[in-house]
Amino acid sequence: MLRVGIVGATGYAGEELISILIKHPHVRITNLSAKIKKPQDISEIFPKFKNRIDLICTQPQIKEIIAKCDLVFLALPHTFSMEIAPALLNAGKKVVDLSADYRFKNTKIYEAFYKTKQKDKKNLDMAVYGLPELYRVKIKNATLIANPGCYSTAAILGLAPLLITDLADLASIIIDAKSGFTGAGRKSSEEFISSEIDEDFRAYKVNVHQHAPEINQELSKLANKSIKVTFVPHLLPLNRGILETIYVKKRQKAKPKSQKLIILYKKFYKKEPFIRILGEGKFPRIKDAVHTNFCNIGIREEAKQIIIISVIDNLLKGASGQAVQNMNIMYKFPEHTALL
Amino acid sequence: MLRVGIVGATGYAGEELISILIKHPHVRITNLSAKIKKPQDISEIFPKFKNRIDLICTQPQIKEIIAKCDLVFLALPHTFSMEIAPALLNAGKKVVDLSADYRFKNTKIYEAFYKTKQKDKKNLDMAVYGLPELYRVKIKNATLIANPGCYSTAAILGLAPLLITDLADLASIIIDAKSGFTGAGRKSSEEFISSEIDEDFRAYKVNVHQHAPEINQELSKLANKSIKVTFVPHLLPLNRGILETIYVKKRQKAKPKSQKLIILYKKFYKKEPFIRILGEGKFPRIKDAVHTNFCNIGIREEAKQIIIISVIDNLLKGASGQAVQNMNIMYKFPEHTALL
Amino acid sequence: MLRVGIVGATGYAGEELISILIKHPHVRITNLSAKIKKPQDISEIFPKFKNRIDLICTQPQIKEIIAKCDLVFLALPHTFSMEIAPALLNAGKKVVDLSADYRFKNTKIYEAFYKTKQKDKKNLDMAVYGLPELYRVKIKNATLIANPGCYSTAAILGLAPLLITDLADLASIIIDAKSGFTGAGRKSSEEFISSEIDEDFRAYKVNVHQHAPEINQELSKLANKSIKVTFVPHLLPLNRGILETIYVKKRQKAKPKSQKLIILYKKFYKKEPFIRILGEGKFPRIKDAVHTNFCNIGIREEAKQIIIISVIDNLLKGASGQAVQNMNIMYKFPEHTALL
Amino acid sequence: MLRVGIVGATGYAGEELISILIKHPHVRITNLSAKIKKPQDISEIFPKFKNRIDLICTQPQIKEIIAKCDLVFLALPHTFSMEIAPALLNAGKKVVDLSADYRFKNTKIYEAFYKTKQKDKKNLDMAVYGLPELYRVKIKNATLIANPGCYSTAAILGLAPLLITDLADLASIIIDAKSGFTGAGRKSSEEFISSEIDEDFRAYKVNVHQHAPEINQELSKLANKSIKVTFVPHLLPLNRGILETIYVKKRQKAKPKSQKLIILYKKFYKKEPFIRILGEGKFPRIKDAVHTNFCNIGIREEAKQIIIISVIDNLLKGASGQAVQNMNIMYKFPEHTALL
Repeated sequence: MLRVGIVGATGYAGEELISILIKHPHVRITNLSAKIKKPQDISEIFPKFKNRIDLICTQPQIKEIIAKCDLVFLALPHTFSMEIAPALLNAGKKVVDLSADYRFKNTKIYEAFYKTKQKDKKNLDMAVYGLPELYRVKIKNATLIANPGCYSTAAILGLAPLLITDLADLASIIIDAKSGFTGAGRKSSEEFISSEIDEDFRAYKVNVHQHAPEINQELSKLANKSIKVTFVPHLLPLNRGILETIYVKKRQKAKPKSQKLIILYKKFYKKEPFIRILGEGKFPRIKDAVHTNFCNIGIREEAKQIIIISVIDNLLKGASGQAVQNMNIMYKFPEHTALL
Repeated sequence: MLRVGIVGATGYAGEELISILIKHPHVRITNLSAKIKKPQDISEIFPKFKNRIDLICTQPQIKEIIAKCDLVFLALPHTFSMEIAPALLNAGKKVVDLSADYRFKNTKIYEAFYKTKQKDKKNLDMAVYGLPELYRVKIKNATLIANPGCYSTAAILGLAPLLITDLADLASIIIDAKSGFTGAGRKSSEEFISSEIDEDFRAYKVNVHQHAPEINQELSKLANKSIKVTFVPHLLPLNRGILETIYVKKRQKAKPKSQKLIILYKKFYKKEPFIRILGEGKFPRIKDAVHTNFCNIGIREEAKQIIIISVIDNLLKGASGQAVQNMNIMYKFPEHTALL
Repeated sequence: MLRVGIVGATGYAGEELISILIKHPHVRITNLSAKIKKPQDISEIFPKFKNRIDLICTQPQIKEIIAKCDLVFLALPHTFSMEIAPALLNAGKKVVDLSADYRFKNTKIYEAFYKTKQKDKKNLDMAVYGLPELYRVKIKNATLIANPGCYSTAAILGLAPLLITDLADLASIIIDAKSGFTGAGRKSSEEFISSEIDEDFRAYKVNVHQHAPEINQELSKLANKSIKVTFVPHLLPLNRGILETIYVKKRQKAKPKSQKLIILYKKFYKKEPFIRILGEGKFPRIKDAVHTNFCNIGIREEAKQIIIISVIDNLLKGASGQAVQNMNIMYKFPEHTALL
Repeated sequence: MLRVGIVGATGYAGEELISILIKHPHVRITNLSAKIKKPQDISEIFPKFKNRIDLICTQPQIKEIIAKCDLVFLALPHTFSMEIAPALLNAGKKVVDLSADYRFKNTKIYEAFYKTKQKDKKNLDMAVYGLPELYRVKIKNATLIANPGCYSTAAILGLAPLLITDLADLASIIIDAKSGFTGAGRKSSEEFISSEIDEDFRAYKVNVHQHAPEINQELSKLANKSIKVTFVPHLLPLNRGILETIYVKKRQKAKPKSQKLIILYKKFYKKEPFIRILGEGKFPRIKDAVHTNFCNIGIREEAKQIIIISVIDNLLKGASGQAVQNMNIMYKFPEHTALL
């Protein structure tokens, strides 16, 4: 039985991790912590866990966590992870970090977008970007996983097969992204009260969102040249799910038909347990991805553009589901355990 | 042109008052104030008012309000109204107070439920409970209106015709009330973020809600005997609207049929511009009352109970619409002006 | 491996059965059928099942079903079940029927409310009402389960512990019920298009809903005397979940305190894996029951009434989850298999 | 008093026309018709109009309409308008047609996208495209208005100021459009039942939507050269409102800053009563446009793209509000009458 801890158990990602892990046959949750005023039964905080898990959630206490856990999920806002991870890693624990702290190899980009210093360069070097479809082999042997951002996951999976072809003008990528409100994390800000969300829809952080540099870093790595996308996120009046409509200009001479593109994508993801490529004329919708760890992708080309629609559940494939998928790979559990 | 001010312009009721009053042909809004950090153009706060009203919203400044307004709407949380109203009344201004501060003739009840002292007994005596269907004559000559609570408006209008008959056991009234989330006022509390509201439904303050004593006071007055209702409010995952399902036991010998009850209600509200009694077998829904100042009522009797369903828009007939209706009566404007 | 079939696979209950059963370690779905125009891959109908189950959904073909299945779930509108069940039962198959066809021992009541004849009295006699908390022993040996209605499940579980006491006036029960829109089944009627549901709330079938006689039958059986409830259902603008606010008058002399009632309920349901009784001052909400098979119950007494709030997911404990729970009992699988 | 009729009174656009026109001081609705089984009081069909308008809605009877109306709104699906309009125009009536029947000067395009013949070329020639911001002078003297499509209105208003500059590469326009579900018209199709909409989001008719050629026709006319946009519409889980995120590549040498673009737009729409250009760093949201006739526009440029966000209420500025605005212009009523 693998003993796992969750730091940040009271946020959306932490809550989702608990939901998944209590169904995992090879795992036992042994520690739950979060920034809370006083220790509290987790089923007091989330009544839906009553009779399903019996644990007290406390302030994070490193010694306790080290004593009780083999692997720790950090479901924390950025900057907090790099304060906690070093001690855990030193003690020989494995860490899956859901924050952005270990995602950027170039610390200047991290520091520009997250307005804070990257203080743990030692561990940063060995952190593996936890996107199994691209880095499964490295994940197997990793001790520190930088779990990808939600928007980044949908964008990278939606574009990866195209990047290694010469069909598209990679300087022209536009990502029009739409996310449910859990994407922003649980905050009691006036911006997220119901009357500001219900029956509304809006763009935000137009081209200045912090996931844009993460997408750029990863796409550039895959294409082996510098890529800068145009990225406009929007807020949907629904709980969970991300849909990204991605536009890439076709190269003048290459005129790939939709069917050819679909075959290309199917081949690229042939053995992937959590990628579904849709047939011609079909496009994924949020409904079919939520409450699953799948990324569903549809593709159509028209006169000028290749249009790719990529959909995930932001809390599963975009956060906690992918984190568990990474854990499954690290511990050689069947990759879909507790995720189907 | 009547010059009006709104204190508490940034809450839901204040916002709604602005919406109504900018369409009112005999009124000019001359002052907007609220508890805000620095003066701000009202269309910065509510972009929907851009190009429709050009006023700065400031902290409430009594002298300024007195100089600029003939009538003032107080759209404030309780206790704040009784701090501001006395100065306005002293200066000869008329006041429509949307808070609970002047609703209770018995200050002990107010103090028990609102956990604060009623500090303005002088003006309390002359305050008129602003339910036009019952107190239109008094409202005409009032200088201080205690505008009714939202739940109270739907409950009292739904029960008034029955109270003066001997058809029902008035000791048995149960009000199962459901309200959209704007009923709670604009707060950035974690309780009202979208993930706590969307796709959820819950009871709250079960039998301890502060509108229960207001309903009891008013029903007792009408029935001329002490009435205590069972009152359970619930929170709907929608913006605006209240629906109350009211159960009253039939008296053993009186066995009124639905049709007879409907005739009784239609007669009682015959001349009312904002009450609609539905025909046999029909029941009102929230959709048909929102964005209107109407109260829609349906009635059915069965073996033991008379079942009354009463629906209003909590921000209109339940707050700002009724406040303007009261103003229209006070100034002899046609009662429906700006309300249809 | 138990081989199961689902007739009515394209409705909400059928869809939910597939979701549950593909996670069940001791079960294999071997046949899917529904009233459809032509055979179609189930993952064409529900893209969310792509890569998770590989079966063609056809018109129901009895021979095929008999050849391939040990147990059959009938997730059909009423009247269709009693046309199919006899052949299955004759062939020695077990049947869990989610319709109302086998719920009423008194066929006159069935026929009055469902406007059709009960044509299979033979099997009706041996049908077991599938509410495990009350009839687990009978379910163990049943071959035909009449799976309870959604409203009925929440009502009966919310009232059962009270019925065997003398604390309450059982002639006074009022059930004010609220359900998400999947409760009505998947229909393309204009009544259920989004503009008729979104931001709306309404009562329907006021005191004439077909679940009222089912509740009456079961409560009367438990209390050993005739009980007739007042039952008013309402339609919530959300996908799934039922919350019922139940009012029962206290008997004049018995004045049970909330705490005593809670202890009574906890004792009654002590060993139940899917019942959660909340502590004093706490009330269940839909959010904590959806996507689970639990029934969550909160209780408070006030001057005149005992108020019970009972919450379930209408598609799980109210339909497909309970159906699988019954199957688990029949086959001696751990009762919570695939349901946690 | 202008006497107006509405054909198609029971659809979303018809319902909205009634809502607007009952508040119009210079207009009386004298005829309501629609494809209905039997004549019915309009307040039976829409209970929200009870006590506000007293008219029977019948099947359209041309003679009756001609006898009773000076102007007729046709709120019909396409093909029906061109069957009714000729008789009305022959009788000297004015017509505002909300369908697509008279929008395309090139009938081949109409016929390709709407799969039906344009049968009234005579009146097509004199039809005026009813976008007041661009064609106010022609509208003044028109007898037949082709009221623009909802997506088209937001797109054209969002792009018009840019088309007459040389700042952007007009061959590169991408319109990522999102609409509430009333945009599709009132249909009882299974595609629009709540469980297919609530908590979902999807693209549809990817690059094959019938508003694309309308947008192309109008942009080409304004730019005086052929323009073909990439147009991807999506369906939002909300009642009303359209938000379009528009991407246009900057021309290599022209590098306009956001501020300069905003000034350009403000100047272009300087005297427009229903256009609001937002300040730098601000973007419009659906919430601030619904229930108004405004089009709100925000603009930002980045390295490669100019990003324009254009928002309207699809039922007001996108349909019925604009229709009334056109009527106001035709009859020299103040343009905002009944629309603020």
